[in-house]
Amino acid sequence: MTPRSIAVNGRQYGWPSRPLVVVCVDGCEPDYVTEAIGLGRAPWLASLRGRGTCITANAVVPTFTNPNNLSIVTGVPPAVHGICGNFFWDREANAEVMMNDARYLRAPTILAAFADAGAKVAVVTAKDKLRALLGHRLRGICFSSEKADQVTQAEHGIGDALSLAGMPVPSVYSAALSEFVFAAGVALLERERPDVMYLSTTDYVQHKHAPGTDAANAFTSMLDGYLARLDALGATVVMTADHGMNAKTDAFGAPNIVYLQDLLDGWYGKGTTRVILPITDPYVVHHGALGSFATVYLSTERLMDAAVRIKSLPDVGLVLTRDEACHRFELPPDRVGDLVVVAERLSVIGTSRDRHDLSGLDAPLRSHGGLSEQQVPMIANRPGADLPYRRWRNFDAFDLALNHLR
Amino acid sequence: MTPRSIAVNGRQYGWPSRPLVVVCVDGCEPDYVTEAIGLGRAPWLASLRGRGTCITANAVVPTFTNPNNLSIVTGVPPAVHGICGNFFWDREANAEVMMNDARYLRAPTILAAFADAGAKVAVVTAKDKLRALLGHRLRGICFSSEKADQVTQAEHGIGDALSLAGMPVPSVYSAALSEFVFAAGVALLERERPDVMYLSTTDYVQHKHAPGTDAANAFTSMLDGYLARLDALGATVVMTADHGMNAKTDAFGAPNIVYLQDLLDGWYGKGTTRVILPITDPYVVHHGALGSFATVYLSTERLMDAAVRIKSLPDVGLVLTRDEACHRFELPPDRVGDLVVVAERLSVIGTSRDRHDLSGLDAPLRSHGGLSEQQVPMIANRPGADLPYRRWRNFDAFDLALNHLR
Repeated sequence: MTPRSIAVNGRQYGWPSRPLVVVCVDGCEPDYVTEAIGLGRAPWLASLRGRGTCITANAVVPTFTNPNNLSIVTGVPPAVHGICGNFFWDREANAEVMMNDARYLRAPTILAAFADAGAKVAVVTAKDKLRALLGHRLRGICFSSEKADQVTQAEHGIGDALSLAGMPVPSVYSAALSEFVFAAGVALLERERPDVMYLSTTDYVQHKHAPGTDAANAFTSMLDGYLARLDALGATVVMTADHGMNAKTDAFGAPNIVYLQDLLDGWYGKGTTRVILPITDPYVVHHGALGSFATVYLSTERLMDAAVRIKSLPDVGLVLTRDEACHRFELPPDRVGDLVVVAERLSVIGTSRDRHDLSGLDAPLRSHGGLSEQQVPMIANRPGADLPYRRWRNFDAFDLALNHLR
Repeated sequence: MTPRSIAVNGRQYGWPSRPLVVVCVDGCEPDYVTEAIGLGRAPWLASLRGRGTCITANAVVPTFTNPNNLSIVTGVPPAVHGICGNFFWDREANAEVMMNDARYLRAPTILAAFADAGAKVAVVTAKDKLRALLGHRLRGICFSSEKADQVTQAEHGIGDALSLAGMPVPSVYSAALSEFVFAAGVALLERERPDVMYLSTTDYVQHKHAPGTDAANAFTSMLDGYLARLDALGATVVMTADHGMNAKTDAFGAPNIVYLQDLLDGWYGKGTTRVILPITDPYVVHHGALGSFATVYLSTERLMDAAVRIKSLPDVGLVLTRDEACHRFELPPDRVGDLVVVAERLSVIGTSRDRHDLSGLDAPLRSHGGLSEQQVPMIANRPGADLPYRRWRNFDAFDLALNHLR
């Protein structure tokens, strides 16, 4: 006997009446889909017009991968689940640390809760950095494309990820890393028929290619083909994104960067302030750790002076105090600096010039992190039942799927 | 004897040492240039890397054509020159009126001032709606592509615009309307050698085609070819834009519209509030009069209630009172409503559903008007001389050209 619904983090979710696949397409600016549809490269997505659902939802700011993936799988914002970046400054430990360890997660996931209630649950993610968080206390299948050759039944709930997907382990910087997620997802749905599946890709392609360009259309076409197969296998499919993506360059393709730590060092002296870029993670070749969101730790007496100076900088769109930012973006105050700085749409924030290696950027920089990457698609292959007129969030994906679709 | 410099609206401009051509490319999101360069479709623009200047400047909000063109040719924001939209509500006349009559202009143009000081000045604009404003009190050549067959020496300073450009009068909804501007500009530079020329295009192509797509690349390629000829003829060329351009749809291509007048009518009753869309003008087929900026007239007692309600709407990014908006965006308070509403990046604001004809939209809506279209390119074919690190505005184009280039 399965329950009719379960409660997770204060919200009730109906039990899936057919397999549910929630897909988080990393960096899926809505225009990637629109342009591909316009050119006939996404026939399945195009076929949903009329029979499916398409919402423009708001992602979590900072518009980065980990905060949004964790919001989607918990159904709540970072203020509740705690993961507000890839990276933060642990004040108690006096250290800059990666936030990809499950001990930083403060809320249970919808995935684990369904598994505990008897559902069969599977998770496939492109990069291994997300696996520990997405799979926290999950009794089920959970592995990454990146380390698909290292899975064990004991740790990942599956012993044969490579043969399952029918692909070799892709490069961590490739479109194939995402394709592996879909190939594995389709095979899992065929073989294991999980009740709930979560698939999460990587934005390698989106960091390099604008919507409507050949490489972007090829990616959306690939994605479209796999989603069509999930649909044909009888699943409810809800596709959303962790964030959008924008060019971050001038017209000649040179990145618009404000090196905030260098400026602060010039104003107040080295070692007096600390700029944290929550985009920082071990995989920075395709974006040089440059995103449109930063947080700054500094002393109280410098706070207002610094806020005024930073606000006047070219490339800066918004400066908020910790309280303002945590209220507006629903962030955990103990993991946010004294100031939050958001860049303008086509600009990014760096720390010090010598701490960013831009040699890996072989295309004009495209990135995310700011308010300008907040609007993302939320698409379903079934129609909604009187969908409320509200500001939908990408972390309403399970709510939409289980409580609002016909 | 010509003066060494002239003063206009509080700023000193050096006398041009060679012909100066300032080009305002309507709706030129910087990525149009970046993508075209990447595909080898803009060799002249690409050749400026190293020898020229490229700045990401801020346009005037509302990011519409008239406020920005007038800011560029006066060197000051709408708070000074008065043109804050195509359209406004004249409270004294109790009428919604077009703001394309020169009587609404409160500041002299740099163009007219140079002509008065003895310079030969020429202006070519795509649509005739801008001609009267750009040519206000200008002793020189001033005509539009749209009405190039109706020019007279007496009124336009030229009697043969059609044979000059060597093109027939283009459709008002075409890429050719902009090409005519460039063709005429090159011919004028060859034949008349004006000291100062201002060329202003239309964003018909940009409203339909995203950066990197074939039609967009073709437009940038056309533009690149004409700018190369201006350069080869010895002119200083400064190219900027009135605003950027963004998709305004969901992933399926349906416009994200908040019909603000309908909502206000529902809350407070018909006839109690008035939503003004400053994008409104006679040429709305390609955007349905839908932009990301609106201003609302309503009674003082409803102000805060309405602000709170509007702020909570999906698609709305920012709500400001008149004072806040006029301070932040440098707008004339007597031509702005009690509230200013700015949409999120991928959304637009409508009045009432039945007042927008979307039947002319044959492609997913792309538009402008909001903060998300504020960053524009400012490109020159000469290097800067110690350019200050500041927030450049597109209306610094003449300042850049005449005071800062080598």
